Amino acid sequence: MKLGLLTAALAELSLEQVAAWASSEGFEALEVACWPAAGGEARRYAGVSHIDVDAFDPDSVQALLSRNGLAISSLAYYPNNLHPDDAHREEVNAHLRRVIDAAAALGVEIVGTFVGNDKDRPLPENLERFREIWPPLVHYAGERGVKIAVENCPMIFSYDEWPGGNNLAWSPAAWDEMFAAIPDENFGLNLDPSHLVWLMIDYERVGYDYADRIFHVHAKDLEIRRDGLYRHGAFSGGIGWQVPRLPGLGEVRWDRFVAALYAVGYDHVVSIEHEDRRFEGEEELVKRGFLLARNALRPYVV
Amino acid sequence: MKLGLLTAALAELSLEQVAAWASSEGFEALEVACWPAAGGEARRYAGVSHIDVDAFDPDSVQALLSRNGLAISSLAYYPNNLHPDDAHREEVNAHLRRVIDAAAALGVEIVGTFVGNDKDRPLPENLERFREIWPPLVHYAGERGVKIAVENCPMIFSYDEWPGGNNLAWSPAAWDEMFAAIPDENFGLNLDPSHLVWLMIDYERVGYDYADRIFHVHAKDLEIRRDGLYRHGAFSGGIGWQVPRLPGLGEVRWDRFVAALYAVGYDHVVSIEHEDRRFEGEEELVKRGFLLARNALRPYVV
Amino acid sequence: MKLGLLTAALAELSLEQVAAWASSEGFEALEVACWPAAGGEARRYAGVSHIDVDAFDPDSVQALLSRNGLAISSLAYYPNNLHPDDAHREEVNAHLRRVIDAAAALGVEIVGTFVGNDKDRPLPENLERFREIWPPLVHYAGERGVKIAVENCPMIFSYDEWPGGNNLAWSPAAWDEMFAAIPDENFGLNLDPSHLVWLMIDYERVGYDYADRIFHVHAKDLEIRRDGLYRHGAFSGGIGWQVPRLPGLGEVRWDRFVAALYAVGYDHVVSIEHEDRRFEGEEELVKRGFLLARNALRPYVV
Amino acid sequence: MKLGLLTAALAELSLEQVAAWASSEGFEALEVACWPAAGGEARRYAGVSHIDVDAFDPDSVQALLSRNGLAISSLAYYPNNLHPDDAHREEVNAHLRRVIDAAAALGVEIVGTFVGNDKDRPLPENLERFREIWPPLVHYAGERGVKIAVENCPMIFSYDEWPGGNNLAWSPAAWDEMFAAIPDENFGLNLDPSHLVWLMIDYERVGYDYADRIFHVHAKDLEIRRDGLYRHGAFSGGIGWQVPRLPGLGEVRWDRFVAALYAVGYDHVVSIEHEDRRFEGEEELVKRGFLLARNALRPYVV
Amino acid sequence: MKLGLLTAALAELSLEQVAAWASSEGFEALEVACWPAAGGEARRYAGVSHIDVDAFDPDSVQALLSRNGLAISSLAYYPNNLHPDDAHREEVNAHLRRVIDAAAALGVEIVGTFVGNDKDRPLPENLERFREIWPPLVHYAGERGVKIAVENCPMIFSYDEWPGGNNLAWSPAAWDEMFAAIPDENFGLNLDPSHLVWLMIDYERVGYDYADRIFHVHAKDLEIRRDGLYRHGAFSGGIGWQVPRLPGLGEVRWDRFVAALYAVGYDHVVSIEHEDRRFEGEEELVKRGFLLARNALRPYVV
Amino acid sequence: MKLGLLTAALAELSLEQVAAWASSEGFEALEVACWPAAGGEARRYAGVSHIDVDAFDPDSVQALLSRNGLAISSLAYYPNNLHPDDAHREEVNAHLRRVIDAAAALGVEIVGTFVGNDKDRPLPENLERFREIWPPLVHYAGERGVKIAVENCPMIFSYDEWPGGNNLAWSPAAWDEMFAAIPDENFGLNLDPSHLVWLMIDYERVGYDYADRIFHVHAKDLEIRRDGLYRHGAFSGGIGWQVPRLPGLGEVRWDRFVAALYAVGYDHVVSIEHEDRRFEGEEELVKRGFLLARNALRPYVV
Repeated sequence: MKLGLLTAALAELSLEQVAAWASSEGFEALEVACWPAAGGEARRYAGVSHIDVDAFDPDSVQALLSRNGLAISSLAYYPNNLHPDDAHREEVNAHLRRVIDAAAALGVEIVGTFVGNDKDRPLPENLERFREIWPPLVHYAGERGVKIAVENCPMIFSYDEWPGGNNLAWSPAAWDEMFAAIPDENFGLNLDPSHLVWLMIDYERVGYDYADRIFHVHAKDLEIRRDGLYRHGAFSGGIGWQVPRLPGLGEVRWDRFVAALYAVGYDHVVSIEHEDRRFEGEEELVKRGFLLARNALRPYVV
Repeated sequence: MKLGLLTAALAELSLEQVAAWASSEGFEALEVACWPAAGGEARRYAGVSHIDVDAFDPDSVQALLSRNGLAISSLAYYPNNLHPDDAHREEVNAHLRRVIDAAAALGVEIVGTFVGNDKDRPLPENLERFREIWPPLVHYAGERGVKIAVENCPMIFSYDEWPGGNNLAWSPAAWDEMFAAIPDENFGLNLDPSHLVWLMIDYERVGYDYADRIFHVHAKDLEIRRDGLYRHGAFSGGIGWQVPRLPGLGEVRWDRFVAALYAVGYDHVVSIEHEDRRFEGEEELVKRGFLLARNALRPYVV
Repeated sequence: MKLGLLTAALAELSLEQVAAWASSEGFEALEVACWPAAGGEARRYAGVSHIDVDAFDPDSVQALLSRNGLAISSLAYYPNNLHPDDAHREEVNAHLRRVIDAAAALGVEIVGTFVGNDKDRPLPENLERFREIWPPLVHYAGERGVKIAVENCPMIFSYDEWPGGNNLAWSPAAWDEMFAAIPDENFGLNLDPSHLVWLMIDYERVGYDYADRIFHVHAKDLEIRRDGLYRHGAFSGGIGWQVPRLPGLGEVRWDRFVAALYAVGYDHVVSIEHEDRRFEGEEELVKRGFLLARNALRPYVV
Repeated sequence: MKLGLLTAALAELSLEQVAAWASSEGFEALEVACWPAAGGEARRYAGVSHIDVDAFDPDSVQALLSRNGLAISSLAYYPNNLHPDDAHREEVNAHLRRVIDAAAALGVEIVGTFVGNDKDRPLPENLERFREIWPPLVHYAGERGVKIAVENCPMIFSYDEWPGGNNLAWSPAAWDEMFAAIPDENFGLNLDPSHLVWLMIDYERVGYDYADRIFHVHAKDLEIRRDGLYRHGAFSGGIGWQVPRLPGLGEVRWDRFVAALYAVGYDHVVSIEHEDRRFEGEEELVKRGFLLARNALRPYVV
Repeated sequence: MKLGLLTAALAELSLEQVAAWASSEGFEALEVACWPAAGGEARRYAGVSHIDVDAFDPDSVQALLSRNGLAISSLAYYPNNLHPDDAHREEVNAHLRRVIDAAAALGVEIVGTFVGNDKDRPLPENLERFREIWPPLVHYAGERGVKIAVENCPMIFSYDEWPGGNNLAWSPAAWDEMFAAIPDENFGLNLDPSHLVWLMIDYERVGYDYADRIFHVHAKDLEIRRDGLYRHGAFSGGIGWQVPRLPGLGEVRWDRFVAALYAVGYDHVVSIEHEDRRFEGEEELVKRGFLLARNALRPYVV
Repeated sequence: MKLGLLTAALAELSLEQVAAWASSEGFEALEVACWPAAGGEARRYAGVSHIDVDAFDPDSVQALLSRNGLAISSLAYYPNNLHPDDAHREEVNAHLRRVIDAAAALGVEIVGTFVGNDKDRPLPENLERFREIWPPLVHYAGERGVKIAVENCPMIFSYDEWPGGNNLAWSPAAWDEMFAAIPDENFGLNLDPSHLVWLMIDYERVGYDYADRIFHVHAKDLEIRRDGLYRHGAFSGGIGWQVPRLPGLGEVRWDRFVAALYAVGYDHVVSIEHEDRRFEGEEELVKRGFLLARNALRPYVV
């Protein structure tokens, strides 16, 4: 395996700067943020464009990475691909296709994204919609030799995303429906064990049960504030008690999770995703956070 | 304490028949179902009218109970008192007031009901609505010397009640808002520990924290099917993994829950609520279920 | 469900005496020991013949049971049906067939027995032998309307039964092989959760996974002496650390086990098997043991 | 085993009244409070004299018990037999000798008491004193065919008994010193598992390790209030977090504790000691408490 | 955060030597032992004087530290500031004031010490005394811009410190009393989670509950020998079962403890306190101990 | 302590190559595989000869190790020294003696091996045989100043080694018999905690109980596949559910195990034994495995 990081948390730095720093700190891969350069999305950890897929030179990007001894583990663009507003949805679907094109141009195997969700409609209806909208997207990627890795985050953090969250792909039950609808070999998961902690889903077992579908791995961590759970209860969707933390500060037992990954033959990148509010706000602090996570994971990623 | 039962599961029997059987099996109290006699509500375990509050003779009801050596622990009417359809809501609010009148007429101290919820609106908005609609209801009861005990069930069992369920009063956080809005001494809980199991809220602590607000206790139990939780995750609202069981067959540790009740001075009725599908469908089976629950609870209810 | 007992522990009493006592103490069914009356088998808890299948009058047995208001839950004969000595094996197989005949004659639905094992040969070889010897036995029973319920005990208690024990049917893996070889509907389990405790197999899950194959249930219990496990380790086959106890004194959570049985629709007999050495040696003590077990189980068996 | 009760909690009743009620509720033995009739000791649960050992007629006491079908499991007198004030200590030692005489006169095998302690001196010094004062007391009892059973309570409930408590016999380490100093066969324990809960000492293991020294068993229960433990910590001697409860409402697993007692051959009385403040203050309430404890224990005491 | 160490365990080395070695091994801060240079205190880990506060040159100390790239996290002097012998107490109080003066002179923000205790008097009486003696000490420090950080160790290891230990500041209940009496912002904790392990107090919750009072953190660890706890019980004050260990060899989950510290915004030093008897006796061994602890903590301290 | 590795997993490399690589990666000791150079044994991880004890030059081996700054922690030869075929057994015993000679010649203190077992005979019979065959072997080593360290592996992985496995020395009960038969001070354990995981034997307690007999430590790890345990049960000897893993990927808590080793004064080598199938097949992968294990252990081995 290789240890990498998702560039989105270093929004203020250029790709060149990110690469230089990551390389000097022992990282081996980057998961490059590819939101539209024109911006627009103001969501936390989103909207970052380290490669402007509408205007970039594959050779110079590759040269930049090469110079720093880094691989690109995937291109990252996480919008709501099932947004209920069709105009908006088509726009983000279109940009996703351009990210796929960019991956193909760069020889990057994987594009990471969200399935998306209409948060106001129940899962069965969203799965209906998924079955319409997603097959052509996966097909488009397949034709270009690119794999789609969808992250298993429910995308609910506050009442703004209530009730259903902005990404339906958060449970084994949903994955089974998704993979039944799209059995294509280039459709899989960007598996993040942290969400499974508050969902109370056994992440080791997921490692074994979905071995063939794990294309990419996010290393984010999470803790459950017990008092918050007491006050709000499991049905509250984590609001008030689930807190994203850096790997090493949360409840994921990384040794055992990584052990499951090795056991099923996963040998790609473990990519640190940084969403710990205690290590944000200034570049130095963000970097300290990445380094803490690196320290916690490095021993197990060989 | 006394051991009682909620009559709703014995819908086919008359109050006379329920009382005779309950008494012969050692029960000491009834929680009498008081849905509108005209019917209309087809929900499982609802719509039962063992006292027709629009037409009954308090003296003969009391005589009937007396003859069987039974007390009435509360009158039970559990509709959606915050139904989004105002016409319907006003109708059920009106019937609730008539149940309150009936309680006053019978000298019954407690009416049990649901706060209700507009399942399609987030909790903060529902609490707003609660603050408008509920104070007059509680006031109405107070004037008549009746206490309102609201049950802590989220009322979500399938996608029909998705996303928010039909009763907002399921978490300590919500109770705090409710009791802050209506501090009246005649407003409290009909505490059912079973819902707290799947909500992963510590029911013993609830016993201590809300001691003054526990007016009535439901003895229902529940189990979490671990494989279902793995497949659906905590965010699914229990759908696919929470299974109501009879007390004695579930995960509530009744000895410790009752210990907390004694510790805080609760000395009213523990009333068995029967919603275990394995003990339904024929009167004999429903009765066996009640007896199993009685056997499990009887040693601790003295 | 009904609460019963296996008569073998009351070897000194006649069936008449057992029935009278059991009935007076609230039991509802007997699992009647049917070893050959001529004796021969000296194994603890074996060799008892409460019905001599070679010479009995079905009508008078039924009358006896009827008089005492008892049902027969099954006929019990637990020899080594795969004994490596073919002469001996054929003898016990032959007696098993006579027990089946007796069950048919009595209108008893179930005969309980052991699959048996050649303790000196590994499981795969024993399964081979099982595939030869058992189908005709099951077929014989099926023709007579009788179900075969095999108990899941490894039959290893000391080095005498080492290494493989005298009954191969102790694990889900073995059951799967057995039921694959003999899918007949009249072939199932006499499920005893106590053995599963020291085998560290989840007995609740077994309840769900083998719902269709649970024909009969043994209520025996067991405890693991932690210091013995430390000294001998799991590979020692329980020798030195597994101790049979009466239900109520062991590690089985009967409430949850019975809950699983109800959940899957089991509605036959829970039959107390008494092998607790602390309640043996004199009739009075054996009976006290049965009563303690009855007290522990009675609340849940309705 | 037999189920009994310690009469001290029913101080307002005469022995006759206690016996009549206990018998009618299914108890089989009494542990009779024998404090000096002249009174003097005002400690909670102490000072009760159901037999005035200075003036009683053994025959009429025995007749009274006989009439009610009850045995006397032991005579109970729990003072501080190592009181630092020698005059007081000699007085209580002297009364203890009279209780021993009374036991001999009544044919009662066991006298229950406290070893005592000088709460202001460390354990090693108290053990020194124990070695001087106790051998003659045990010898006195032995000559009269009476066993001394000392209870394992640290006798610390508030700062009044701080720091060492009024009874040193609360840990296996102390028992080992005691039994090394007095190996006499008539010196043993009145084992109460409840104290071991807050002392965090494994009560099942105690059952096995001190099998030969368990002369009598107290059935009292206890719970640890987790929040109190957080605030005060283990070093606080339980003040602020250990709460005596009735058996069935506390943390002792009576099934497993009694299982250990049966395993080691204990076959005397399990005697309910009632010190639950929620069931005190009026006779009716005290009795309800005893009945709840009886209900919880009765199934296992056969 | 920075990783530091308390110099007391390296008593044989000069401050210069300690600083050089610590710096070369990657430590970033020193907690400098400041007992009176004249000696006198023979207690284990005490009596060390790496800065003689009665005669030192602040500039040269600062230069020494600077040369080695080290900060001083606090000055350390841990006597019994509530010693029952007033003469002795005034002496140590006086030295504490001189340590405060030294801190002011050095620009060191924090002085670490013990509140102290009269081990023979109960907590409420000691708190009374605390309210008299401590306010002027805290005030003295405040006037000089110095914070007082008291360590949460009960200072009981053997019967010499029995019964109350030599430092009352070991529980949240005591802290609440202390902070109520002295709400000054320059009065807080030198939080050591190891003591909380044997006191069975949740150290993560302490991190959250006392966030504002955590001025300094000790990284010491501890294990509970289970057999010792069985023999001596919780009331024995840890004697016989609590064993100080180096961080990484004990029961503190440093990842989760440090996670709580980050969560509440603690960003000062984590200072290794070395009291593991297996790594003592020779300088080499003491240093190995520090390095093991460094290895265990380093990944999380960024 | 020192960190080392067992050379057997690097069978394709010469000792020179192993030493150079190990040294460059920070290892401090080698446990050198000494199977007969002529080969013959085809067992996985066996048959490797990094020193041909029949033909080697001690000086040049020592020089080689010296050059690389490495110690030899032990010579390793793990055959079945109680093989039932006497001819074969004598052959392996003879080779074991030559390995002992080699150790003496090299000044290596320890030879590691298996006691062996006749897998088809029960433990008591094997212990009989042990008592005959082993004393002269231990005596032979003692005369040469060499210690024999036997590994605690049951040597059962499939039905080939069923039922008893090829090494009887896997439980405290067996060790006690062994050390009673051979109390010689040069007879002890090469303790590997991984086997104890699936044997469900407390490895920390083993550290304390057998302190004097721990001559050498293997760092191998293991996980129990829960689903396999469900299917096969504890009596299956681990077949189907015990999976060897590298330290850091398994269930051993190395921090606590190493803590026990330090506590009892163990200060020799912790030697990584590599048997994780996911890190096999090519040299690079094997080395990655060793490095992962090194990363996991290095912080605690100082």
